[in-house]
Amino acid sequence: MYQLTRVCKPSRARLVHLGIGIRPPLPRHLPSRLLSTNALEPPKPSSSRPQIPTEPLPRSRLLSRILLVAKYTGLAALSSTFGILLLGAGIFIHDAFTYTNKDVHRVPVLPLALHPEQGGPKNLPIVRALVDDVEDDEAKKLLDKPKLVIVGGGWGAISVLQTLSPGDWHVTVVSPETFTTFTPLLPSAAVGTVQVRTLVEPLRKIVARLRGHFVDAKAVDLVMSERLLELETLTSTGNPKNVYLPYDKLIIACGSTSSTHGIQGLKHCFQLKTISDAQAIRRRILDNFETASLPITTPEERKRLLSFVVCGGGPTGVETAAEIYDFCQEDIVNYYPKICREEVSIHVIQSREHILNTYSEAISKYAEEKFRRDSVDLVTSARVSAVHPDHVVYTVRAPDGTITTHEIPTNFVLWSTGIAMNPFTRRVSALLPNQVHKKAIEVDAHLRVKGAPLGDVYAIGDCATIETSVVSHLLELVDEADKNKDGKIDFEEFDFMVARIKHRIPMAESQLQKVRTLFDLYDSDADNSLSLNELCKLLEEIGNNITALPATAQVASQQGKYLGKKLNQLAKKREVLEANGIHDLDEAVSKTFRYTHLGSLAYIGNAAVFDLGNLSFMGGLAAMYAWRSIYWSEQVSARTRFLLMMDWIIRGVWGRDLSRL
Amino acid sequence: MYQLTRVCKPSRARLVHLGIGIRPPLPRHLPSRLLSTNALEPPKPSSSRPQIPTEPLPRSRLLSRILLVAKYTGLAALSSTFGILLLGAGIFIHDAFTYTNKDVHRVPVLPLALHPEQGGPKNLPIVRALVDDVEDDEAKKLLDKPKLVIVGGGWGAISVLQTLSPGDWHVTVVSPETFTTFTPLLPSAAVGTVQVRTLVEPLRKIVARLRGHFVDAKAVDLVMSERLLELETLTSTGNPKNVYLPYDKLIIACGSTSSTHGIQGLKHCFQLKTISDAQAIRRRILDNFETASLPITTPEERKRLLSFVVCGGGPTGVETAAEIYDFCQEDIVNYYPKICREEVSIHVIQSREHILNTYSEAISKYAEEKFRRDSVDLVTSARVSAVHPDHVVYTVRAPDGTITTHEIPTNFVLWSTGIAMNPFTRRVSALLPNQVHKKAIEVDAHLRVKGAPLGDVYAIGDCATIETSVVSHLLELVDEADKNKDGKIDFEEFDFMVARIKHRIPMAESQLQKVRTLFDLYDSDADNSLSLNELCKLLEEIGNNITALPATAQVASQQGKYLGKKLNQLAKKREVLEANGIHDLDEAVSKTFRYTHLGSLAYIGNAAVFDLGNLSFMGGLAAMYAWRSIYWSEQVSARTRFLLMMDWIIRGVWGRDLSRL
Repeated sequence: MYQLTRVCKPSRARLVHLGIGIRPPLPRHLPSRLLSTNALEPPKPSSSRPQIPTEPLPRSRLLSRILLVAKYTGLAALSSTFGILLLGAGIFIHDAFTYTNKDVHRVPVLPLALHPEQGGPKNLPIVRALVDDVEDDEAKKLLDKPKLVIVGGGWGAISVLQTLSPGDWHVTVVSPETFTTFTPLLPSAAVGTVQVRTLVEPLRKIVARLRGHFVDAKAVDLVMSERLLELETLTSTGNPKNVYLPYDKLIIACGSTSSTHGIQGLKHCFQLKTISDAQAIRRRILDNFETASLPITTPEERKRLLSFVVCGGGPTGVETAAEIYDFCQEDIVNYYPKICREEVSIHVIQSREHILNTYSEAISKYAEEKFRRDSVDLVTSARVSAVHPDHVVYTVRAPDGTITTHEIPTNFVLWSTGIAMNPFTRRVSALLPNQVHKKAIEVDAHLRVKGAPLGDVYAIGDCATIETSVVSHLLELVDEADKNKDGKIDFEEFDFMVARIKHRIPMAESQLQKVRTLFDLYDSDADNSLSLNELCKLLEEIGNNITALPATAQVASQQGKYLGKKLNQLAKKREVLEANGIHDLDEAVSKTFRYTHLGSLAYIGNAAVFDLGNLSFMGGLAAMYAWRSIYWSEQVSARTRFLLMMDWIIRGVWGRDLSRL
Repeated sequence: MYQLTRVCKPSRARLVHLGIGIRPPLPRHLPSRLLSTNALEPPKPSSSRPQIPTEPLPRSRLLSRILLVAKYTGLAALSSTFGILLLGAGIFIHDAFTYTNKDVHRVPVLPLALHPEQGGPKNLPIVRALVDDVEDDEAKKLLDKPKLVIVGGGWGAISVLQTLSPGDWHVTVVSPETFTTFTPLLPSAAVGTVQVRTLVEPLRKIVARLRGHFVDAKAVDLVMSERLLELETLTSTGNPKNVYLPYDKLIIACGSTSSTHGIQGLKHCFQLKTISDAQAIRRRILDNFETASLPITTPEERKRLLSFVVCGGGPTGVETAAEIYDFCQEDIVNYYPKICREEVSIHVIQSREHILNTYSEAISKYAEEKFRRDSVDLVTSARVSAVHPDHVVYTVRAPDGTITTHEIPTNFVLWSTGIAMNPFTRRVSALLPNQVHKKAIEVDAHLRVKGAPLGDVYAIGDCATIETSVVSHLLELVDEADKNKDGKIDFEEFDFMVARIKHRIPMAESQLQKVRTLFDLYDSDADNSLSLNELCKLLEEIGNNITALPATAQVASQQGKYLGKKLNQLAKKREVLEANGIHDLDEAVSKTFRYTHLGSLAYIGNAAVFDLGNLSFMGGLAAMYAWRSIYWSEQVSARTRFLLMMDWIIRGVWGRDLSRL
């Protein structure tokens, strides 16, 4: 605490300068010390090391370090005071000149945009023109460009939009939410460490760069033969009204929903996929603490209200548990009856043997250790069998195989295990005969939806999965490789075939290292050639060994970037290629998609873990700040980046906001 | 625009420094200029006037002024960069040391708090102890202090809480909302000029200073004989569960609701009294623009969706209309189809002849002029007769008295005219026989509820009104004044009586300037003395001429402050006074309440107006900033003050947030 006093005081002291004025002491507020004038001096030229304040005090290295920081913290607050005030002046001028009296009169609108024709299988209005298609010259220019329609506004969609170069496509984004969300920080938003508004950026601002259009609607169906996307829009009275939106290219990037695993009563659970999820969780958590503080709440009821259950030991579950712990430890304890803090219990129920099981073992261990120290209740190798309004039932399999059933009384259950298709994706894959995958739309290595007209429809992110079955390509492969048409594949032919497989299914590459061994292994009759049967077995085996890409933001945005680049290329070369009668344009303009894993990270309560493939890194505050700075740099706009910085500072100075709204 | 370029660029340029990085040009974004190295120099000692940048340019006074500001704006952003980063470092250290591992174990709790006894007229649990009453020594100390219960968390309640000195009272705040709201900025929040979170401060943080308690409940009834306040709390299942909260002193400060004036279909209207009102309005406005942008919306429907109707030309109505106008002018026009901006129409329907009719005439005129320039449709001397889901009906009375009926198709109606009692206040005044007032609880000049046991129950703010009837005191007054008991009041006696009236009803003072004239005027039989009849007429007349205090934040907080000071006095002197058998403690420790009007202000769209009693002041940007700084200084906490500053800066740099959530 001693260092604490020395360190924090200046920053508060300067806040007074800032004209912000400190309230009478809150619990987290600290006694006044160290108002040494040094802190008020202007910064020395960066070279000279600043002096330690003149007042006599023990000369420990640590202490002087801290004083050093203290001083700069002081300077910090001081200069930011100065800065903010002057910036204010800047805004003043800005306001003075930007307060536009723009007159908007007689905006040109295409008649077709006001009175769309009817048509399509369901004879709905077909939106061939939008109201802002001809409002100015820039917009007009895009009219004759091919129509690119993007369904969804998540990671995939955004990275496409940010990669596309303006002027090539007539872009329309379709989403029921008017903004994109920085999902990795949802757990922080759920307890108010950051504000929800910090995590969102309006899609209209993002498409503005491409002079694109935004339609506030839900995609519900697809007519591939006529290239019509069916949208459900809502009238002002809230009634659905469907329309067709024509497209030349369609990108499906509408994400996923949580999978239920067929559990009873998931309606009693929270999810954490959207902003409104985070808001609902926040309200419930504060509700629970308020109700627990009521004078008539029984001890049993209080225990139940303050037990928080997280189903799923993946990053989302773990981070949410950690944030809830932080919230109790840093804020609840200061402002709610202490009995409430005492009665809090946090439970994480994980089906595998370890939490964060997709991370390196060291990381799982570290995280589990941290949680044990924080007395967070970890239940591993357990399956939730039912969720009731007031308690959760789960079964645990002991190492000896015996299964026991347990209950946790609770008023908060977060469900964060696995993903499933949302209605639109389910509909799309139902339309396609050869879509076998259960959890997502299957796409080829070019991210084209399998079975859709070639190059018309793409799918990226959580709603898509790249095909891993090699055997389905057996015939083409043999056709290509079997030079002497003897119906058998000798080694040279196989060698060539392997190259083709690698090209078609890049993810199979790891399985195709030792060609010779593979060949001999499956050449059961040792006639130095593979019969179709032998080949079939081989390819099947390879397919089964390929692991699909995880449903992460990282995959989605890499796919989006890949697609964006490709579309830029297509815009340039399309005409020439088509003139030359080239059929497979994707093949012609770009390689197949390859995913490079940049590592995974997770926040585990004033500490963080990083899994960078072979190297893994974990630690306390420093790691946490590394975690923060990575997310900070990932922000979609300058605005959100600024807001995020502010949120962290505000949380540091004043703690989290306890208002339930 | 030329100055604009010179001026705004630096602030943006530095934002890049700030590591914030600018997105590809948004419409409001500006070409790069003026990166003169001057802007990078450290600030000169305040005395010397800074030089104009060296690059040659026309030496107009205005220009050099602008350059001067530009330079400082540059410095501003630069230093705030520096500041924020270093502040970040400060927070880092702060985090390092404040991440508590506080263990909370075996918190002492009174058995009575866990198992309250039943009792009272309705035999409900009586909360004689709270769960945090004995959790530490500080809390224990307050146990034997008199119980002060405050109903509500608005302006009145907050200023009581901020005036009370800690340690004197066992304070409990009862409110269904866990936070207090800075109501004057709700219109800004309704369009996202400021964030809702900026306007709220958790009540728990405010009562923390007094080690007070907060109960998340709604007051529903009162048992004055047993000093029990009946609360409705909600269980985790959402079912109401009522309890009694005992009090020694009760302060009712639970505000008001909007009065309906018996209009049909007010359920289709928005109000603007709470945060959730503001959020709902914001969502509706954005909904309207999104639906209006949909390709299938008909021109008529678009017109309806984009017509915004405000009923009531008081400050709230006017400011909301102005904010909506700003929102369209500054943000909508940049990111939504221009046709939407063109079709927007804003209507203000006012019953009186002028808007802002409580302000000086000059101000009304100024505001009306401003609105005309912005082509905001002002409808004065008009009454709304009905509100339908899709249109508003109102009647206008022409100067010649003829009444015409009109309709406005709309999808947004704000109702901001007059106030009415909320259920609890209605219940309270129903309990008291002599409560005649229809709109609020009547209190005496000491703010004590009339008819309640003397000094037990106070009421302040919108839910209270100070009695203005003098004649109801006739008998006491005569009793006091009629020295010679001749049943008549001669002039000396009347002179004394006047003093007593001024004391009892300070608001009557203005009516009692010319005592002699008054006396002669009502001494109809000119017998140089007033009979009871004459006196009765006189007093009645005086009462009728007193205008009640307006239902404003200013009145509420002055009353709260007054009450807080009085309670501090009572805590000190109570015992002595009671020992001396003094009955009327309020009388003994403090004067009656006197309201001093500090002026009213209103924002009218990049301009503001101030009515300071006899002096009134109005103007553009400068006035707007005066308006801002007044509200800024009024903020309840350092946190909200900082957030407000940030909101204005963010709005200045990036515009308002368009995300609908």
